[in-house]
Amino acid sequence: MTGALPPTIAWHDDHVRLIDQRLLPGELRLRDARTVGELATCIRTLAVRGAPALGAAGAMGIALASVRGEDLDHAAEELLATRPTAVNLQEGIDRARRSADPVAEAIAVASEDVESCRAIGAYGAGLLGADARVLTHCNAGSLACVEYGTALGVIRAAHEQGKRPRVWVDETRPVLQGARLTAWELLTLGIPATLVADAAAASLMARREVDLVVVGADRVARNGDVANKIGTYGLAVLAQHHGIPFYVAAPCTTIDGATPDGAAIVIEDRDEREITELAGVRVAPEGVVVENRAFDVTPAALVTAYITDAGVVAAAELARLASR
Amino acid sequence: MTGALPPTIAWHDDHVRLIDQRLLPGELRLRDARTVGELATCIRTLAVRGAPALGAAGAMGIALASVRGEDLDHAAEELLATRPTAVNLQEGIDRARRSADPVAEAIAVASEDVESCRAIGAYGAGLLGADARVLTHCNAGSLACVEYGTALGVIRAAHEQGKRPRVWVDETRPVLQGARLTAWELLTLGIPATLVADAAAASLMARREVDLVVVGADRVARNGDVANKIGTYGLAVLAQHHGIPFYVAAPCTTIDGATPDGAAIVIEDRDEREITELAGVRVAPEGVVVENRAFDVTPAALVTAYITDAGVVAAAELARLASR
Repeated sequence: MTGALPPTIAWHDDHVRLIDQRLLPGELRLRDARTVGELATCIRTLAVRGAPALGAAGAMGIALASVRGEDLDHAAEELLATRPTAVNLQEGIDRARRSADPVAEAIAVASEDVESCRAIGAYGAGLLGADARVLTHCNAGSLACVEYGTALGVIRAAHEQGKRPRVWVDETRPVLQGARLTAWELLTLGIPATLVADAAAASLMARREVDLVVVGADRVARNGDVANKIGTYGLAVLAQHHGIPFYVAAPCTTIDGATPDGAAIVIEDRDEREITELAGVRVAPEGVVVENRAFDVTPAALVTAYITDAGVVAAAELARLASR
Repeated sequence: MTGALPPTIAWHDDHVRLIDQRLLPGELRLRDARTVGELATCIRTLAVRGAPALGAAGAMGIALASVRGEDLDHAAEELLATRPTAVNLQEGIDRARRSADPVAEAIAVASEDVESCRAIGAYGAGLLGADARVLTHCNAGSLACVEYGTALGVIRAAHEQGKRPRVWVDETRPVLQGARLTAWELLTLGIPATLVADAAAASLMARREVDLVVVGADRVARNGDVANKIGTYGLAVLAQHHGIPFYVAAPCTTIDGATPDGAAIVIEDRDEREITELAGVRVAPEGVVVENRAFDVTPAALVTAYITDAGVVAAAELARLASR
C-alpha cells in the first residue's frame, strides 16, 4: 500500500465491491453489495461517497438490477433518492440505463473515471510551483473517485513529476472526510500533509502559508457555480481576500449543463446526529436545534479556473464541456 | 436552572469551586480546587476557560497560595504557565499579588467581572434589532466569565429587554465549546439557537441569515487587534465580504495596553489529540502531522466596534480603557 490505493469501487463477477469508507482510517475493509438496496445503503451511509465514485456506483447499481433481472426504473429511483447533490450519480445511472449491456457500461464508466482523473492531474500539476503549499477541503482523492482523485490527483501528479507539494488538510466537519480519508491517502502516498481544524484555514492564509486552494466538486452548474462540501464557499471568499488562487478540479461528468446556476442545485440536508454526536458520544445538549447542510455553493466569480479532464478552463468554457 | 446558571467559578470558604466544563453538556458538576496545582490542572485541561473566568481563576489561585502559606511567586509562575493567550489570567494574578488581602481581592475580581458583563450586555443590546439573527463562535457566555457572559451577555440583555434574538452557534472545533457550552447555555436560558458546523457560517451569510456577528476575546491589543478562538479571523473576513457588522464583546480587563498589536500576542499551541481524537476515538490516521493553534488574530480594521463595560467604542479609544 505504498503509493497504490485499491480501487474505491469495482465490478466483481456479478456484484459491486467497494472500500467501506466508514471504517477508515482505522481499517481498510472491502465490502460487497449484491443488491440495489445494499448499494443504496452504502451510498446513503457514506460507505462510498464522492461525486465521481457515485457516478460509477450509479451505473453499477443499474448493472446489479440488470443481472438480477430486476426493474430498472425502480432501481434508478432507489439509487437516485440516496443523495441529491452530486450530478454524477444521475449521469452514471442514465448511462447504464441507455446501454444494451449495463454491466459493460458500468465498467466503462469506472474505467473512464480513472482516465479522467489522470488527465485532471496532468493538466493541473502545472499550476503548482516546485514547493507549492496546497490547501484542500473534504476528500477529492482516490476515495472520492474510482482511483487517483481529482483535487488530490492534481497534487499526486505534481508529486510524481518530482515537485514537492505540501498539503494543508481541513478536517472537514461534520463527517471528517479530511481527517479520516484525505490525511490517510496522503500519508499512504508519502506526500507531506498537515491536518488542521476547518476554522484554521483563514489564519493559515493570513500567515502566507497557503499558495493555492484546490477542491473537488459535487456539481458544477453551466455558469460555473460549484456545489461542494460545506465550507468550500467560505474558503473561496477567504482565498480571494488573501489573493490566493482557488481551483476546482472535476471531470466533465460533474459539469451539469442542465443546471443553469448554483441557485438551481438541490442541497442535501443530512442527519443532525452528524453534528450532535462524535463517535457515538453525545456532544451537544439534548433538544438543541441543528442545521446540517452537506454542501454550499461557490459562485463562479470566486473560482480562478476549473481543472477538468479536458484542460484548465474558465467558467465561460464549461457549457461546451458539460455532461448533459 | 431556567434562566439562572450557577457561577462558573467562586471562592468558597478556603478554596475554589468551579463548574467542571469538561463534563458539559452531559453533566453539571461542581469541582473543588484546594491547591494551586489542582487549579492549574483545571485551567490547563479546560475545566475552567474563557478570558474573564481565567482572570478570576488567576486571582483565586494566588488567594489559594496565600491561605496555604505558599510562595506567591511560585504560584504565579505555575498559574501563568498554563495558558499564554488570555491576558486576564495575568491581570487577575497581578491584582491578587499586589493586594494585602489576596482572598478579598480575588472575590472582588470575580464580583467586578459580573458587573462588567452586565454593563457589556446593557451597552451591546442596543446594537441588536428586535429580531436580530446573531452568529457567535466558541463560548463567550456565562461559562467563559463568572456569570452572564460577554458576547452571550449582549444577546441575553437584548432577550431580557423583550427583543427576540436568534443565535447561530458555531460548534467550534476542536474542543466544541459552541456545541457543548454555548448551545447548552442558550437552551437553559430559553433563547432560540441553531447549532451548525463552523464551515457553514459563510453560506449562512450568503443566504442573508446573519444580521451581525458577536464574539468574545482572549486578548485585545492596544491597537484593537483581537486574539480569540481559532476561526474568529475567518468570520471577520466573511462578515466584511457580506457587509455584516462584526462586534467584539469584552471587558476592559481583556484590553492589554502593554501589547501594541496582534503580532505581539503569543498564540497557544494545544495537544494534537484535540484534532486526532473524538471522545477518545481515533479519527485521523496514526502518524499524521497536526497543527492545533487555539487562537487567531483579527485585525482591528475588520472589527465594526468593541462592546466593552465602558461603552461601545472604536479601536482608537481602546488604549485609554486598557487594563495595564
